[in-house]
Amino acid sequence: MTAAKYDVLGIGNAIFDVLVQTDEGFLSRHGMTKGGMSLIDEPRAAAIYRDMGSATEMSGGSAANTIVGIASLGARAAYVGKVKDDQIGRLYAHDIRAAGIAFETRPAASGPATGCSYILVTPDGERTMNTYLGAAQDLTPDDIDAEQIAASAIVYLEGYLWDPKSAKEAFVKAATIAHGAGRQVALTLSDSFCVDRYRGEFLELMRNKTVDLVFANESELHSLYQTSDFDTALKQLRSDIGLGVVTRSEKGCVVASKDGVTAVPAFPIAKLVDTTGAGDLFAAGFLFGLAREVGHENSGRLGALAAAEVIQHIGARPQVSLKELARQNGLPV
Amino acid sequence: MTAAKYDVLGIGNAIFDVLVQTDEGFLSRHGMTKGGMSLIDEPRAAAIYRDMGSATEMSGGSAANTIVGIASLGARAAYVGKVKDDQIGRLYAHDIRAAGIAFETRPAASGPATGCSYILVTPDGERTMNTYLGAAQDLTPDDIDAEQIAASAIVYLEGYLWDPKSAKEAFVKAATIAHGAGRQVALTLSDSFCVDRYRGEFLELMRNKTVDLVFANESELHSLYQTSDFDTALKQLRSDIGLGVVTRSEKGCVVASKDGVTAVPAFPIAKLVDTTGAGDLFAAGFLFGLAREVGHENSGRLGALAAAEVIQHIGARPQVSLKELARQNGLPV
Repeated sequence: MTAAKYDVLGIGNAIFDVLVQTDEGFLSRHGMTKGGMSLIDEPRAAAIYRDMGSATEMSGGSAANTIVGIASLGARAAYVGKVKDDQIGRLYAHDIRAAGIAFETRPAASGPATGCSYILVTPDGERTMNTYLGAAQDLTPDDIDAEQIAASAIVYLEGYLWDPKSAKEAFVKAATIAHGAGRQVALTLSDSFCVDRYRGEFLELMRNKTVDLVFANESELHSLYQTSDFDTALKQLRSDIGLGVVTRSEKGCVVASKDGVTAVPAFPIAKLVDTTGAGDLFAAGFLFGLAREVGHENSGRLGALAAAEVIQHIGARPQVSLKELARQNGLPV
Repeated sequence: MTAAKYDVLGIGNAIFDVLVQTDEGFLSRHGMTKGGMSLIDEPRAAAIYRDMGSATEMSGGSAANTIVGIASLGARAAYVGKVKDDQIGRLYAHDIRAAGIAFETRPAASGPATGCSYILVTPDGERTMNTYLGAAQDLTPDDIDAEQIAASAIVYLEGYLWDPKSAKEAFVKAATIAHGAGRQVALTLSDSFCVDRYRGEFLELMRNKTVDLVFANESELHSLYQTSDFDTALKQLRSDIGLGVVTRSEKGCVVASKDGVTAVPAFPIAKLVDTTGAGDLFAAGFLFGLAREVGHENSGRLGALAAAEVIQHIGARPQVSLKELARQNGLPV
């Protein structure tokens, strides 16, 4: 196995975020399930957007947010995701490259526009996402560069990739190449409704060792094993995968491996503003720690710190250097 | 004179803001004059953007920001400005309408893209703007709806309109219609370099009573009268126009009319984050007060409050209801 060129390569749906702070009434008027991610078609996107207030826009996408966090911590990172060659797609490509990330996926020249998520942030800080996949639907196995995958110590995949038709083939191709090159493959379950759509397939990915590490939050874990008992679910997770990391919001996280279970507390925050990106940035810190081999506890702390930064402002990308922040907090970077 | 349908109608360059926090080195590397607004062409826009970090995007434009602030205070407002019918233009149109503002200007179907400003915010909170006018160049007198102008108690124009070729004709047409209907016309001098480009024309607009009220900050005032002495400049301003309002950053503002000069202190802030929109939001508060006839001092206080809100976060549009904020601070709304 040759030395890795990238610490982490992420593959995901490239989505531009359109964020607005709103009241609970907006969610009920539009029949939205609070806290979830719903896939929407163009007419529904138009209807929601028409009713939304003035927004702030920025690049998003779950795995992309994670990769940006990893780069902000100082690691070498790459991203694979599909935008269209339109104005928003060009903003997207700029932002991820400006964060120091290798991004070579060819944009779609035709077909649907760059994907957008209409994100409603309620006064309690919870975010409710409505995602129009757009060009992200067109990610195919051809977008997977075998050489780049083999040159990445960890390949990180989002469960959301199971939604677009051919992206899951790209996912499996990447995982196969990574394992062939002796690399690690990580998966985030993304969303409890996403787990509900693809429960059997996600369990199969874990059990047949297509993935080595799984990130889940509590509701995704409960959805995966269809149980409301945390310990039961955690026990099943430990039997299904070598390394599982479960985030529990203000209760911190639990890292479950064959060796045992380590609990890491959440990082204290001054004020919760917007949970968008909380899980993505937790994964960033944890994967960075894993790549630097600083141990599960330190990796969990790095995840908690990165998540704490991102939930104290609007938007899913860090607003400060996470490397600096980690240093100030005595964490290994 | 019939009752006004709109308290304030603003006309300006419709510009989408691309904001990034950066260091002083970026400005010097790109030969930028800190604190100013420079017009840039497409190649320079591309060169600056290529070197910029990950950005946050939101609708901007000086007069548009003011109009959004006025609507946030609870007044009826309208906006005239030219975007293209492209992705960014549609985001722009959405945002201004979502703020409750009448916006009927037909977007350009062809020609340059919607205008963008690349805004660099340095650690001291100062903003340096690089504006590609794009479709804003195509605002013409045909975009001025006589009926709408005549139905607006105050017509507010930005000095930046002197940059695009035919926008100044639109400006003069609007002012003429407004005065014909017995309405007031206000002008902001926009930027000291803008004043330097059009000093003679701006003075002529004031002296021939095309405008009734002028907003300027200290450097614009000094540029207008080519003097470094504030009192000399203020005296000249008073002889040239019925009502002049000069903003002085943390020193507050001075309202100069035939009757006398009133100084109003700045509103205290916790932390200066980004001065983008400070002058725009000051004008919003002042014009709102003028429309509601609450007196110069209260108008100045409303301006100071709105400016204080906008400089404590990234971006030039208010993030809270200014009406609520004014109420909480005992100001008349």
